[in-house]
Amino acid sequence: MKKHDPELLAQGIIQGERFALAKGITLLESTLPSDRATAAKLLELVLPHTGRAVRIGITGVPGVGKSSFIESFGLYLVDKGHKLAVLAIDPSSPISGGSLLGDKTRMEELSRKPEVFIRPSPAGKSLGGITAKTRQAILLCEAAGYDTIMVETVGVGQSETAVRQVVDFFLLLLLAGGGDELQGMKRGIMEMADALIINKADGDNIARAKMARMEYQNALHLMPKQASGLQVPALTASSIDRSGFEDVYFLIKKFQQQTKKSGWWQKQRDQQNWQAFLSHVNEGILNRLIEQPFYRELWENAAEKVIGLHQDPDSAAEALISKVIDRLRTGN
Amino acid sequence: MKKHDPELLAQGIIQGERFALAKGITLLESTLPSDRATAAKLLELVLPHTGRAVRIGITGVPGVGKSSFIESFGLYLVDKGHKLAVLAIDPSSPISGGSLLGDKTRMEELSRKPEVFIRPSPAGKSLGGITAKTRQAILLCEAAGYDTIMVETVGVGQSETAVRQVVDFFLLLLLAGGGDELQGMKRGIMEMADALIINKADGDNIARAKMARMEYQNALHLMPKQASGLQVPALTASSIDRSGFEDVYFLIKKFQQQTKKSGWWQKQRDQQNWQAFLSHVNEGILNRLIEQPFYRELWENAAEKVIGLHQDPDSAAEALISKVIDRLRTGN
Repeated sequence: MKKHDPELLAQGIIQGERFALAKGITLLESTLPSDRATAAKLLELVLPHTGRAVRIGITGVPGVGKSSFIESFGLYLVDKGHKLAVLAIDPSSPISGGSLLGDKTRMEELSRKPEVFIRPSPAGKSLGGITAKTRQAILLCEAAGYDTIMVETVGVGQSETAVRQVVDFFLLLLLAGGGDELQGMKRGIMEMADALIINKADGDNIARAKMARMEYQNALHLMPKQASGLQVPALTASSIDRSGFEDVYFLIKKFQQQTKKSGWWQKQRDQQNWQAFLSHVNEGILNRLIEQPFYRELWENAAEKVIGLHQDPDSAAEALISKVIDRLRTGN
Repeated sequence: MKKHDPELLAQGIIQGERFALAKGITLLESTLPSDRATAAKLLELVLPHTGRAVRIGITGVPGVGKSSFIESFGLYLVDKGHKLAVLAIDPSSPISGGSLLGDKTRMEELSRKPEVFIRPSPAGKSLGGITAKTRQAILLCEAAGYDTIMVETVGVGQSETAVRQVVDFFLLLLLAGGGDELQGMKRGIMEMADALIINKADGDNIARAKMARMEYQNALHLMPKQASGLQVPALTASSIDRSGFEDVYFLIKKFQQQTKKSGWWQKQRDQQNWQAFLSHVNEGILNRLIEQPFYRELWENAAEKVIGLHQDPDSAAEALISKVIDRLRTGN
């Protein structure tokens, strides 16, 4: 297979070839300008074969047991007959295969399953860029026949908002007795979650986990419902003995059924795509403008006036904007 | 004086006429498209007469005594021979004259002084817009001969960052024994402050205020220096007996002298103006683009493709961006 043949690549992906899928995602992640058109073509070709998976986001602070949960719940899903793709968003990772999913031994058994495709976090300069690549990778995985996509993220910072923008269902893993200092961080993320899972509910920890579950349940009743219209439940789960997995599984199934019926399922995806389009357009236009010689010249002239205040910044900005818009108006 | 004669208005302002100044600021705040060019012309005319005041930002949570401080310290400044303008930034105020400075009785004595000009918060849809209007109002006040400008803001949310962008020196008012729940909020704002003032250091409260001052002083020693290169001090002050005002006054004087010597004074203003220019350009280009028929058409076509995912959002965005940039390239 030639690297630059999007038709062959798309064909391989649609036939479920793992090698083609991996190569396709690498192509999406390429920053070479020459690869851009090929990647766009590939996306266009696979698009009719996408959209059928359930996309699940998984977050939680380091140490909450995300990898173990994904490994164990992933094996549970495979036993149920599902095909699973696991992706990651990690803006803190400087190179591909950083802190998330990079450590292969963390999901050793899962990664050996033929029904499972695991891909570490894409490298990228901006979180926006990483999010876009993850959104596109999800499409390729769907075209390759994976019916369940899990997107893992670190439970700190802005990456949760990014993951929330590319998934249907967002799971927040928590521990019983998590420190108070984490609550503030969790509150914002909690508002994005479709379900909370008190993880590591096994052994000596069961009673504490059940208590925590009740406390979170009570707290959730005070919060507004999700945009989905559904109440956010708190569950317990164990990656060791799989307890609670049945509840999580049917919760996600129920979410799919109810939101497909209510129309929220498609509405959320439409909103996500529209939002992605808007962000990309707004960021992209400004980035591309600054590459244009005529714009750089306007910009540099304005800089001379603004620095030292020979012109007030707002008048200088308005003058520049008018010139750009006039040029667009007279364009053809 | 006719409303739309910027020359006459500029002349009145430069001669220190309060009525002209008030009218000029109203013109700046006007959202009528026909007033835009006049406002720009007015700014251009007064610009050579601006820049000579010290611009002081004042923030603190509700109840910290901002208005009383401004009233009392303002009267102190007038006694010292200064001319004072007081402006406000309050994005929560839906109409001009909202919660900040709207209550005239709050600064009754100060507002009657001929050496003082007080203007409530401008109305506006976006914080960016309000900030721009405040920055321009500062210029008019300077042209009118006010040598000290105070910009007040509420101590919550994003408005501190906005005020920080238009002032030379940023004062944070605090109370002894403020609740723990406020500390988190204050930490971010504290990093922007050039000085902390423990307010209401009078009567029974003096000992507690001095204690708090020492505690803040210790905490400040652990923080990095301000971009100005100067250590951030903590002071105490009382709006009732003016104790501490001398210290605050000479602190600001010293700040001016030292930063003018080091170059930071002008550098910070240049940076503020450049940042204001960038924000205005980036926001303005996107806002003006969307008004253009050719762009709306591209946009609506893309929307049809993106909603329902007939095209992936990134490819749709790239296609639109390319068309806009191509049109600009071929422009004249």
